[in-house]
Amino acid sequence: MKAETFNREVIVGVDLGGTKILAGIFTPQLRFLQSSKLNTKSERGFDAVVQRIARCVLDALDAADLTPNQVCALGIGAPGAVNPRKGEVIFAPNLAWENAPLQKELERLLGIPVFVENDCNVSALGIYEVELQRKHQNILGIFIGTGIGGGIILDGKLFSGFNRTAGEIGHMVIDATGPKCRCGRSGCFEALASRTAIFRELALRVAEGEKTLLTELLQPGELITHLKSGDLRKALRLGDKLTERVIKKSAEYTGIAVANLANILGPEVVVLGGGVMDALENEMMPIIVEIAQKYAMPGVLKGVQIIASSLGDQAGINGAAVLGRQRTKEKLMNP
Amino acid sequence: MKAETFNREVIVGVDLGGTKILAGIFTPQLRFLQSSKLNTKSERGFDAVVQRIARCVLDALDAADLTPNQVCALGIGAPGAVNPRKGEVIFAPNLAWENAPLQKELERLLGIPVFVENDCNVSALGIYEVELQRKHQNILGIFIGTGIGGGIILDGKLFSGFNRTAGEIGHMVIDATGPKCRCGRSGCFEALASRTAIFRELALRVAEGEKTLLTELLQPGELITHLKSGDLRKALRLGDKLTERVIKKSAEYTGIAVANLANILGPEVVVLGGGVMDALENEMMPIIVEIAQKYAMPGVLKGVQIIASSLGDQAGINGAAVLGRQRTKEKLMNP
Repeated sequence: MKAETFNREVIVGVDLGGTKILAGIFTPQLRFLQSSKLNTKSERGFDAVVQRIARCVLDALDAADLTPNQVCALGIGAPGAVNPRKGEVIFAPNLAWENAPLQKELERLLGIPVFVENDCNVSALGIYEVELQRKHQNILGIFIGTGIGGGIILDGKLFSGFNRTAGEIGHMVIDATGPKCRCGRSGCFEALASRTAIFRELALRVAEGEKTLLTELLQPGELITHLKSGDLRKALRLGDKLTERVIKKSAEYTGIAVANLANILGPEVVVLGGGVMDALENEMMPIIVEIAQKYAMPGVLKGVQIIASSLGDQAGINGAAVLGRQRTKEKLMNP
Repeated sequence: MKAETFNREVIVGVDLGGTKILAGIFTPQLRFLQSSKLNTKSERGFDAVVQRIARCVLDALDAADLTPNQVCALGIGAPGAVNPRKGEVIFAPNLAWENAPLQKELERLLGIPVFVENDCNVSALGIYEVELQRKHQNILGIFIGTGIGGGIILDGKLFSGFNRTAGEIGHMVIDATGPKCRCGRSGCFEALASRTAIFRELALRVAEGEKTLLTELLQPGELITHLKSGDLRKALRLGDKLTERVIKKSAEYTGIAVANLANILGPEVVVLGGGVMDALENEMMPIIVEIAQKYAMPGVLKGVQIIASSLGDQAGINGAAVLGRQRTKEKLMNP
């Protein structure tokens, strides 16, 4: 009886990615209960993806012996520019979405209040609240995966700026004469240090005839760019020189980016996350911290922590649950 | 009688630079009354400079037929890292100061409450309050002179971050393989677009044998690097190709910096100021705006103004007066 009363108030956090959907069920105190995972299959289009999100949420609820009417809020982080007020995804290149009414459609399918935010903002919120337990009020989250994004917490609140686009750190130009970025510009942080950048550089070197153990990890017909971050870790641990050089370069650029952002924003904690960091934390963090300290201005990093997130790929669902809880409270206070 | 009562409440704003001191007298409504100017003569050391600041303030007061006991507060912007709580200048390379007790010494000399802040923060405050009349709440000020600095206003308040160092935009690395900066790193915004960077590039080109009208503006024995921003304007208006190319490059880098900062911070207004902008606004602004729009991510600059400050070298004293007024109010409310 007591358990049932409690369960009337669970919160759902969804991490919508270009390749997979992750849904987590949390208590109002943000204790994790259950989760579920589905491939996104973005090629099937917006309607199909929203249905898959709903299915993933129902799967997770079912695993926790719950039904949608026991959910008080659903938060979701989407990979792109988001209008949180309208609950729309304005622009998400990985999903090929433009002005997609995610909140409206998901609310229609599930009958639950839905709150949408940018995925990196959501992850930063999760790190602030769940990982760092609100002990620090100014946090910069840097998420390095296929792309690179950022989330900024100022005075304990998500900072999103005038057009709600703040934190677009992946397209900060660091090396104006550097490699082309998928955004069309040159030398963006993302074009220098994302997984995409790392594998492009490796493929280029291999094409130029350099030797690497990575080629031995390939299945017949597979390309270097088909490998995963975990394969890089394997190659590094086997002492592969090319991988070592490319990862070092990427970590150095990340260190410069951390210094640039610390110089500009003066954060108290810089947290690095995302797939690349999850796989290569031990290899990259010492270089990132060393270069950041070298490139930051005197005094900027005094007492500042530069750490890898311990939440890993759970930052997204945790943060989405925090978002759901926070926005529900705000709605109750300003109905 | 009425005038005298009014004058009991003037505010002094001081702009302390590496080469000159500017002091302005303002009414509590921030109407400008009088100003005075002195060379800094920083080579004479901290004590001498503080005495010169006091003299400059007394000169301005005298010009307005006032005495120090008619001043309710003095705000001062100093070129370096500042601890506003202690009123100390932590580090000011242009003045060769370290942990300099500016507030304490100036209060001792003048018997007026003194409030110290970083000069770029102070200028941003002046632009927010006096030039833009508090109509916009998120403002990024970029000040390009001998060096480059920034000031950030968020939600109508000066944003200075965890170590009070936020806004150190001059040492954002934009071109990692670019020219050496005076800070020891390479490719900083300041090393690419400040007056120092512009004249270094011009001197380099002339040394390589390129022709420019600038050499005709030189006195016997004078070097290119001795010229002023105004001389660049003269050369540009005479159609000097080398100057045009160098200024264009510098404006392009500034445009990239504006885009980087807009991507990160999402400001509502970006205001450019400082000596280089004052002299070359017409020549540089169209290029800066064009490149910023090209480099900013979609949606980031929607409805955002990118403008040159109309306050010119008065931004510093205006902002310092705003600082004095603001901090006095805060002190009255939280004594």
